[in-house]
Amino acid sequence: MLEHGGRLLAAAQRYGIAPEDWLDLSTGVAPHAYPVPPIPPAVWQRLPEDEDGLAELACRYYGARQALPLPGSQAGIQLLPRLKAPGIAAMLEPSYEEYAGAWSAAGHSVQRCSAEELPKAAGAADAVVIGNPNNPAGQRFSRRTLLDLARQLEARGGWLIVDEAFADAEEKSESLADAAGSAAAANVVVLRSLGKFFGLAGARVGFALAADAILAPLAEAIGPWAVAHPSRHAARAALADGAWQAAQRARLQRAGARLHGLLAAAGLGESSGTALFRYLARDDARQLHEFFARQGILLRHFAQPAAVRVGLPACEADWQRLAAAIGQWRI
Amino acid sequence: MLEHGGRLLAAAQRYGIAPEDWLDLSTGVAPHAYPVPPIPPAVWQRLPEDEDGLAELACRYYGARQALPLPGSQAGIQLLPRLKAPGIAAMLEPSYEEYAGAWSAAGHSVQRCSAEELPKAAGAADAVVIGNPNNPAGQRFSRRTLLDLARQLEARGGWLIVDEAFADAEEKSESLADAAGSAAAANVVVLRSLGKFFGLAGARVGFALAADAILAPLAEAIGPWAVAHPSRHAARAALADGAWQAAQRARLQRAGARLHGLLAAAGLGESSGTALFRYLARDDARQLHEFFARQGILLRHFAQPAAVRVGLPACEADWQRLAAAIGQWRI
Repeated sequence: MLEHGGRLLAAAQRYGIAPEDWLDLSTGVAPHAYPVPPIPPAVWQRLPEDEDGLAELACRYYGARQALPLPGSQAGIQLLPRLKAPGIAAMLEPSYEEYAGAWSAAGHSVQRCSAEELPKAAGAADAVVIGNPNNPAGQRFSRRTLLDLARQLEARGGWLIVDEAFADAEEKSESLADAAGSAAAANVVVLRSLGKFFGLAGARVGFALAADAILAPLAEAIGPWAVAHPSRHAARAALADGAWQAAQRARLQRAGARLHGLLAAAGLGESSGTALFRYLARDDARQLHEFFARQGILLRHFAQPAAVRVGLPACEADWQRLAAAIGQWRI
Repeated sequence: MLEHGGRLLAAAQRYGIAPEDWLDLSTGVAPHAYPVPPIPPAVWQRLPEDEDGLAELACRYYGARQALPLPGSQAGIQLLPRLKAPGIAAMLEPSYEEYAGAWSAAGHSVQRCSAEELPKAAGAADAVVIGNPNNPAGQRFSRRTLLDLARQLEARGGWLIVDEAFADAEEKSESLADAAGSAAAANVVVLRSLGKFFGLAGARVGFALAADAILAPLAEAIGPWAVAHPSRHAARAALADGAWQAAQRARLQRAGARLHGLLAAAGLGESSGTALFRYLARDDARQLHEFFARQGILLRHFAQPAAVRVGLPACEADWQRLAAAIGQWRI
């Protein structure tokens, strides 16, 4: 298994600090989650059903043609490589580590490249996997750039997989959610997630947006009842709640700007990222991570390239705690 | 996708009866589900973690050595075939339809046989998949019979997969939960589920009990965070609640006996089954299913061999409604 953020219980054991005493900034999950209504007993009891309206609500929210509910976008990341004959999968370095793991495990050869090298790599690849914005470094790609990549891939029957897990607080105009599966982008799969913007990482709900020729075998690979019924119930409520979504978007943009400013003012340098996290590439990333962990503040450390990712504090006390800790760091 | 019980929304559309007006007896899910406590917001928000004690609680409840949480035992049914090189998988006819589908999809050749033919089939098979008790017909197998099968399979490196989804209200002494993964049964995988006895089919929680040599690659195939956090929360509560479990066991045994008696008294013949369902093999199964569906009572119909399966009503009014409908059937 790869290492990920959010492993608070493991950190609590390692540093001898009780789980409830941590400030966990190791994930890109929104600190204010959608307030899930109580789950009716029948929802726990009954098998989930495809006809419950979840896919339709997702289509409306994302502006998509077709949506397949996934038990987290992780399921799409993991299963899409198995639907393709072994070939070459190109992806950014650094990017979300599960991409390379999943494509390698399915027998593909993984080619890592920079954003500038992507168009060339796409010409020889059977798949390109890219986050937009990209996690952890936060690069953004225009719709036009991505559609160009998709066209290049099409010649070889290749797929463009765009992971838009962090796209909800971004400019909607750069999303491929509305294009995926159209005649002009039949080889594009967009992955979305309720884990980040909606703050429902525990629910394990995501979506694949694509043409039926891709979604049908993906649905078979996932199997029946893959998304838990309470999770579907929560997801329906969250996707239908436009007022909450608008408030959340504004809140996250404010918080992201505040975090960016806080890190810069402390002399930690210019960070990249999204509304939900900031990314600091630094040679001393390991020491920085250790320094915060010993104070019960969990960041996400990346070994190669050396970096830390910092998520959003939830409340004013947490902001102050982070600011105080940063103040202690010898720059 | 295969057809399953519990597709109430689909039945509602087909028969023009509103979902809330149905008496759904199409599943083997207990009608009184474990009363799940409210889910704390942090559980929706945070990624689930392996260190939350769920596996340990499962080991205690099942008397097992090692337990891997699954997003429903369906995940085990579906992924175990992919961990074995293509070979021969033997299974009972009839048995739960996902077994054959999963083994075929993974490139194995599926051999169906009767309970009597199983020992012979095991001698030439790479895997035997068997429900104990078996769904839908309710046959039971002794621990001794199953351990003999496992020994036969061992010679070829074969696996015995025992699906104990309906075992919680049965004699514990016939379960292989405590043996799976021991030196004497290193090639045995037991699958358990919280969907039936605990009535939490919507939660999608099950377990694989087996040796680490099988569980480790299964865990890799399933990937991280596969069981939703609220589902893990509910499962922990259910597995720890011994008083509720004892009451449920008694309640289900009474209800199962009542259903058996009701069907027999109505002249529908001797049914087989478990505490959670009764199975009637009848040439007119399709008509029987239609007859009940038109009255808003959903049974599970099996085409081949022709049969219906009847689950447990939840309350006295539902029992009376079922009894009244049975009274209308021309025998």
